[in-house]
Amino acid sequence: MKKLLLILLLILNFSCSEEQNNPSDTVVKNIEDLQNAIDNAQPGDEIILSNGVWKNSQIKFHATGTEKQPITLRAETPGEVTLEGESVLKISGEHLIVKDLYFKNGYTPDEAVIIFRNSPDSIAYNCRVTGTVIEDYTQLDRHRKDHWVEFYGQYNELDHSYIAGKSNEGPTVKVYLNDNRHINNYHKIHDNHFGPRPRKGGPKAETMQLGASMTSMTPSYTQVTNNLFEKCNGEVEIISSKSNFNNFSNNVFLESEGSVVTRHGNYATISGNLFIANDNPYVGGIRVINTGHWITNNYFYGLKGQEFRAALAVMNGIPKSPLNRYNQVTDAVIAHNSWINCEQPIHFSVGVNLDQAEVLPPSEIRSARPERVIFANNFVYNQSATSYPIKAYDKIDGVKFKSNLYTTAYDNNTTDLDYFAFAKADLKPAYDIYYTPTTYEKELYNGFNFNAIETDALGKNRNQDQNYIGAIIPPIQEEPVQLMTDNYGPEWFTAASGNQDIKTHKVSNTNELIAAIENANSEDVIVLSEGNYLIDKTIPLSKELTIRGANDKATIQFDALKTGFLMQPKGILSLENLNILGTPEQDLFNTLDENMSMAYGIHLKNVSVSNFKSVIDASKSSFADEIIVNNSQFNNCKNGFLLDKETDDKGDYNVEFLTVTNSTFENISNEVIDFYRGGYDESTIGGVLNLSGNTFMNCGKTDSDEILVNTRGIVNVTFKDNTFKDNHTKLTAVLWGAKGQQPINNTITNSGEIKVVENIALKLVY
Amino acid sequence: MKKLLLILLLILNFSCSEEQNNPSDTVVKNIEDLQNAIDNAQPGDEIILSNGVWKNSQIKFHATGTEKQPITLRAETPGEVTLEGESVLKISGEHLIVKDLYFKNGYTPDEAVIIFRNSPDSIAYNCRVTGTVIEDYTQLDRHRKDHWVEFYGQYNELDHSYIAGKSNEGPTVKVYLNDNRHINNYHKIHDNHFGPRPRKGGPKAETMQLGASMTSMTPSYTQVTNNLFEKCNGEVEIISSKSNFNNFSNNVFLESEGSVVTRHGNYATISGNLFIANDNPYVGGIRVINTGHWITNNYFYGLKGQEFRAALAVMNGIPKSPLNRYNQVTDAVIAHNSWINCEQPIHFSVGVNLDQAEVLPPSEIRSARPERVIFANNFVYNQSATSYPIKAYDKIDGVKFKSNLYTTAYDNNTTDLDYFAFAKADLKPAYDIYYTPTTYEKELYNGFNFNAIETDALGKNRNQDQNYIGAIIPPIQEEPVQLMTDNYGPEWFTAASGNQDIKTHKVSNTNELIAAIENANSEDVIVLSEGNYLIDKTIPLSKELTIRGANDKATIQFDALKTGFLMQPKGILSLENLNILGTPEQDLFNTLDENMSMAYGIHLKNVSVSNFKSVIDASKSSFADEIIVNNSQFNNCKNGFLLDKETDDKGDYNVEFLTVTNSTFENISNEVIDFYRGGYDESTIGGVLNLSGNTFMNCGKTDSDEILVNTRGIVNVTFKDNTFKDNHTKLTAVLWGAKGQQPINNTITNSGEIKVVENIALKLVY
Repeated sequence: MKKLLLILLLILNFSCSEEQNNPSDTVVKNIEDLQNAIDNAQPGDEIILSNGVWKNSQIKFHATGTEKQPITLRAETPGEVTLEGESVLKISGEHLIVKDLYFKNGYTPDEAVIIFRNSPDSIAYNCRVTGTVIEDYTQLDRHRKDHWVEFYGQYNELDHSYIAGKSNEGPTVKVYLNDNRHINNYHKIHDNHFGPRPRKGGPKAETMQLGASMTSMTPSYTQVTNNLFEKCNGEVEIISSKSNFNNFSNNVFLESEGSVVTRHGNYATISGNLFIANDNPYVGGIRVINTGHWITNNYFYGLKGQEFRAALAVMNGIPKSPLNRYNQVTDAVIAHNSWINCEQPIHFSVGVNLDQAEVLPPSEIRSARPERVIFANNFVYNQSATSYPIKAYDKIDGVKFKSNLYTTAYDNNTTDLDYFAFAKADLKPAYDIYYTPTTYEKELYNGFNFNAIETDALGKNRNQDQNYIGAIIPPIQEEPVQLMTDNYGPEWFTAASGNQDIKTHKVSNTNELIAAIENANSEDVIVLSEGNYLIDKTIPLSKELTIRGANDKATIQFDALKTGFLMQPKGILSLENLNILGTPEQDLFNTLDENMSMAYGIHLKNVSVSNFKSVIDASKSSFADEIIVNNSQFNNCKNGFLLDKETDDKGDYNVEFLTVTNSTFENISNEVIDFYRGGYDESTIGGVLNLSGNTFMNCGKTDSDEILVNTRGIVNVTFKDNTFKDNHTKLTAVLWGAKGQQPINNTITNSGEIKVVENIALKLVY
Repeated sequence: MKKLLLILLLILNFSCSEEQNNPSDTVVKNIEDLQNAIDNAQPGDEIILSNGVWKNSQIKFHATGTEKQPITLRAETPGEVTLEGESVLKISGEHLIVKDLYFKNGYTPDEAVIIFRNSPDSIAYNCRVTGTVIEDYTQLDRHRKDHWVEFYGQYNELDHSYIAGKSNEGPTVKVYLNDNRHINNYHKIHDNHFGPRPRKGGPKAETMQLGASMTSMTPSYTQVTNNLFEKCNGEVEIISSKSNFNNFSNNVFLESEGSVVTRHGNYATISGNLFIANDNPYVGGIRVINTGHWITNNYFYGLKGQEFRAALAVMNGIPKSPLNRYNQVTDAVIAHNSWINCEQPIHFSVGVNLDQAEVLPPSEIRSARPERVIFANNFVYNQSATSYPIKAYDKIDGVKFKSNLYTTAYDNNTTDLDYFAFAKADLKPAYDIYYTPTTYEKELYNGFNFNAIETDALGKNRNQDQNYIGAIIPPIQEEPVQLMTDNYGPEWFTAASGNQDIKTHKVSNTNELIAAIENANSEDVIVLSEGNYLIDKTIPLSKELTIRGANDKATIQFDALKTGFLMQPKGILSLENLNILGTPEQDLFNTLDENMSMAYGIHLKNVSVSNFKSVIDASKSSFADEIIVNNSQFNNCKNGFLLDKETDDKGDYNVEFLTVTNSTFENISNEVIDFYRGGYDESTIGGVLNLSGNTFMNCGKTDSDEILVNTRGIVNVTFKDNTFKDNHTKLTAVLWGAKGQQPINNTITNSGEIKVVENIALKLVY
């Protein structure tokens, strides 16, 4: 019996060997010992980083394992080994495994956090990073470019990792292809959780970029499968595929404000992916450029994105396009996809821009329509009224439509249409989101090589007996694995959720207020009783706080300071029910002059602001995700909102959403709103200004040659129901007609006109 | 015993089944029966075209065989079944074989002669054309475009065929890739004899074109192996590869005035090919554009081509090139090649044209140098003095040179150089042309994936024991199969050789002369005794003839005719030792107004020409391969040589070689020489004018605003040792500096100047 137990223990020991220290393992406690262990590593060895903070650790893991006996570098206890400060991990050699590391509280001093090479001639093959976390490891300045994982070599792997919080320029994951040693790479990126990537406020913020335009002719064969992309909102592209033969299959895209884009390169497989919008109108799906892609078995649920962010956007190309621009879409196969409760999800000839011929060079005009495209066996269902599933910006003469079905729960007043057979049916979902057609007897289209679409989106075999229209063959027998989001990322890691115990701090004098601001946890609320709060120092803000006047308005008076609130990274401040007074030398809000590594936010509700130099004067490189103003008054200030510092004209801007509603501006003597974006780059599709129901009076006195509300280059502007009276600028606003901007129902008295220009000339970004 | 014999007979019968008519075979005698047999064909069937001329036969071979039981369509007796007139063969379906057909005496009425599809939706897969001849089956007008073999579908095959004599526009063989049904095609083109393709005098005359710029992103995988390309002189590209992953291996390129060009598309394999120039200075080798090509084991013997026709031309690209122009060369591997007795064979940055920025748009400027190119383990040998093996038109900063050897038989005054180790050695060849280094002890470079270069050019394994620098591992054990040119093409066919019994016809009066011209065989010689030969009708010429005056000059006098000699396709006329007199209304030479389907030629030696309207006035679409004039006099004509009818500006011209030496022009009142080519297209590198040692006197009287010798757009002009006296034109000539044209040692008296302009503005062809 004892013997049996011993054997069992041995077996247990063996099966848990990765978590135990074996005789051939080396536990290292500092970077010198680590490097020494690496230098002496033999196949089968494990090198174990002892628990603790590894600060400024620049690890060069170069060794040669074998397929059967890889060399492993891992954390002693997952989660207890953190790489902080200026740390970086470089890997080269063969058959190496890195496990359970945790990068946080810092940023890479190098070009990336994890790099699959040690030098241009020392490259990784068959190496793997697994169970690893990179969290908020973002550069101090968003314009300082880096990546977080750089792939070189061939047959490398990133799996079961969690990666979130990159706010600076540069794709999170980048695959390099600029050398024969990196092509045909068959890298595997799977079972990862790509957590929130905040909006960047400009281009170059993809979550993944495979290749580059200059190497877009290379065969890549990168496999991106079974990952969760959650709130990957960096820019309009979540994944930018810029090489050939890549595979994006069975991933979940959850509330991610962008698309999977075949930006350059050809013959991508995009199959079995699940896109879920949850009412976020900026969530996109798949945007198609170039040749030969197979887009099959994808399931789009509740998407509302339009144009570049349509659930399916098939673009127009530039005839004989330059290498870095837009090739025509040809020979694509779009089959067996399902669009469920989406708003007009299928857009053809997106990007056609013949009407911009006067401001763009001929080599920018996308006039080449999709050609030799097959659109077959697809399914669209809408429970409630919506517009027709297809929107076309140009003739659809290069697409063959076969055996598609459009179903609605209501009477559509439609019979079979050009592109879809129509049926009325009130479908019920399986597992909340999976709607499938009830019966479909029409013959499926059997296109060339369609037998390569072997399964449905959930893995069921599409043999002749059971093949079916749309992404999913009914019935669904068990809960789809895609819905089990716990499966993604490292087993040992759970991303922090918000404050679970939000407190309200009541204060009644300045000292209490200052103390509460300092001591409150993020998301807490501070309530000011009636009275006057004189503050003679700048209040720095790097957490989320609400400061609210009690019933009647409390008054905060800033005295003799340059800045009232100094917004820092992650600072989100809501001010409600307050009078705020300043002096002509101070700004109510500023941002750090540098190191604004992450976004901040401001919410003003029922606030009166008076006597400041500016309401906000944001710094270059700063970025607010949202500045939301409602029911507030601004009086006797020199400037209002100055969000105009990104003047490099590379597509960046200082705030994503600037919303000002039902508010009053009076005696703002210089600029009321200056919101600027420069540079022609259609992959930037922000910022967003909503200016509705406001009154502007006696503003712009010292700015009479200028524009009262300056929105130059901002893509989305709503300008509605405002009243302008006795303002002094020559123009009230100049709106951008080509982007659909129009003034609606504004009243203008003794003020400058609102002009709409169709096109504005911008510097080309690329 | 009888039984055994019976069995043997059965076996014999079975093994010869292709040449016998089996019960399941159908012999057909006309197109209706043929089509009927095709409609009823079953796997394993043979359909046999009965011997005879099949005129205007448009065969639609659509059927479905199996891999083990293909359906065959063949000639009853190879060579005895000729498809003539307007015949065409279309093939679609699966597992079909076409054998032993012979196309001649006609041209296709369709887009091609043999087409691997019957319609856009009826395509061939696994079909084969073998043992077939297409000879001189060329369109009547060289501007009427067609192909001779068009590949569609996948896994089709062309082998053991002979194809020669295409004179009109369009590649001889074309592979289409503009649909998913044609990509990844793995077509096999092997063991064919591509016989002479005459110079076309303009672009679009490749022997093979795989794809097109607009589909150059497609994976093709066409296999072009073990073919003989003999005198494929159509244009500057013999093979134009315009798709990806094509393979050109073990072919022989014999005296072919062009190159294998990776024009568009990437990752071609060009390996084990043998290039033989036999002193023809226009023979090229391999021209490299785009990414990722592997150029290995090629053997270049005696090549003298330069720039676009260099033995190895690695081009500069256009940065971010448009799809139809020149991508940069990147990631190419050039290894284990041998250049033997070549003149400066290796050219880098060919096509750099920064100096033409004033006449070309920026999107035409090739400033992107080769990058990440590996040049290793190559061997250069020269028996006699020549210049350094490498010529560079720009910096060579993107090429890695490793373990290359340069050997000469003479003292080069050189030691090891930047790119090559140097050795002096007087090598002896095996089998006349195969020179290999005697000893080479320096270590070979072992680049990434170099183990994929498994064999040498002759198939010997490159394992570690015997690997060697250059294309061939010495010693060579037996005669290389490449030298056995009889192996190529159909076994049953031998291309006609010239007249084996050249006769001389002596004539002494006009009637005898006319009769001799009519009755002579091609290549015969007619000798005129002294005297005057008055000819009052036009003499048509469609064969090769020499008409020669005996000792003293005979005189031919044309009377009252528009045309003296009317040159027809294949007409080649040599006139020697003659006085030729005309009238002011007639031209000595004209060409047919239409149907000049093939080239003609004119040689004048020791001839005096007087009193004509023009010496030659060529028609549009006519093309002379050579017009050679030596020691002749031209007096009192209105015009000299009018070769200026290709005014569409698409790169075409009327004569390839115009050579005028040691001759005199006097009283030519209008244009003396007008030789024109229009259109900017660097793939046209003709025509060629050599004007040396001539005297021009009192010419150009009625053409005083013009140019005496007009060569606009002609690429190669030699202008040397001429005397110009008392001519009336403003300019004598305008030479093109960018093409290296310079007047040398001319004497100009009382005549217009010779101007050299650096660049001339030309219409873009594409």
